[in-house]
Amino acid sequence: MQVVVPFAGRTPKSRLEAVLSLEERRDFARAMLADVCGAVVATGNSPTVLATAPLSETTVTSLEAGTGGEYRVEIDDRPLSPAVNALLEAADEPVAIVMADLALATPVTLEGLFEINGDVVIAPGRGGGTNAMVVRHPSFRVDYHGASYLDHRQGARGVGATLETVDSFRLATDIDEPADMVEVWLHSDSRSKATLEAQGFHLETTEGRVRLARD
Amino acid sequence: MQVVVPFAGRTPKSRLEAVLSLEERRDFARAMLADVCGAVVATGNSPTVLATAPLSETTVTSLEAGTGGEYRVEIDDRPLSPAVNALLEAADEPVAIVMADLALATPVTLEGLFEINGDVVIAPGRGGGTNAMVVRHPSFRVDYHGASYLDHRQGARGVGATLETVDSFRLATDIDEPADMVEVWLHSDSRSKATLEAQGFHLETTEGRVRLARD
Repeated sequence: MQVVVPFAGRTPKSRLEAVLSLEERRDFARAMLADVCGAVVATGNSPTVLATAPLSETTVTSLEAGTGGEYRVEIDDRPLSPAVNALLEAADEPVAIVMADLALATPVTLEGLFEINGDVVIAPGRGGGTNAMVVRHPSFRVDYHGASYLDHRQGARGVGATLETVDSFRLATDIDEPADMVEVWLHSDSRSKATLEAQGFHLETTEGRVRLARD
Repeated sequence: MQVVVPFAGRTPKSRLEAVLSLEERRDFARAMLADVCGAVVATGNSPTVLATAPLSETTVTSLEAGTGGEYRVEIDDRPLSPAVNALLEAADEPVAIVMADLALATPVTLEGLFEINGDVVIAPGRGGGTNAMVVRHPSFRVDYHGASYLDHRQGARGVGATLETVDSFRLATDIDEPADMVEVWLHSDSRSKATLEAQGFHLETTEGRVRLARD
């Protein structure tokens, strides 16, 4: 299986800008990428990092450490959907697309996704996103804009592809907004968590859900 | 297995007050309770609704419809943790505690939880909560305040109980804040969704995650 991990390295995680500087967002995004790619390698697959621009030296170092060098890079400066669709068009084997900010992904959860039969298998993200998917149908194309989970369901029906979903909290949790960051703290022991620790975060308990904070 | 579904009927879902009136919150909470209890019944278990006060006639009607009458009610006006702990102390069989706002829970996801071996089995919720759990250890007690997921892990260690977790998006999704409501829309076809439809909500697509809105 070809496992694609899209990565926008230059201005990553813009919705975290209320709590992290640009440099910090880059560090955190890089750590998550290395964690995700490391989990892919542990499933026995070699990830393809689909990047909008050549990776920085720091990103390469981090990826090497996370994967043991078991990855390759493809550069495509188009937006996410056409870039992924170009890979789908060219593919002669099943393609998995796994978002680079799934900091809670583990080898077991990814194997669960890869092993489910179906022309299209989706791990939905919160808020209607498509956090990870496997495509085994030659005519299916992605559209990540808006409520992509609904669009992908419709797209699968449109080309006569069977669709399955995966019920996984770990794969549903993309780290996109400040409130998501606490999940990394609670549920992973990874480069991503170490990065947040180095950035000075700690757990803050409020009346409702807990969150991360720093002084 | 004794399956307990705690329910605070009088002022439910206070964190939804920005988008729903008190009456609407009551309707929605009641629909979620009926959905959750219906899913429990479909696993072959009979839920015990642990209520802070006698159920209203409307709630009883909704529960009857959702469960086919397969439930019983226990009244305890203490806060959640002491009320649940009283049941744990009295129990002579495994006890599952399933929150009443898990509108995405299905029989399959609940069976997955019930079938996992372990003295304490937790389905974590977002933000460090404990959305559903099974307790098979006589000395384990709950503490739902704050980051209960961490407290329950520690509590299990403290009494020498083995602890397992369940990786389920459906069980991780408690409908607590306005942003959570869209998950009901996207991933269930239930009384809870019908209630939101009747309340005039529709899907609104923004740049990031989608959400529910009404005019």
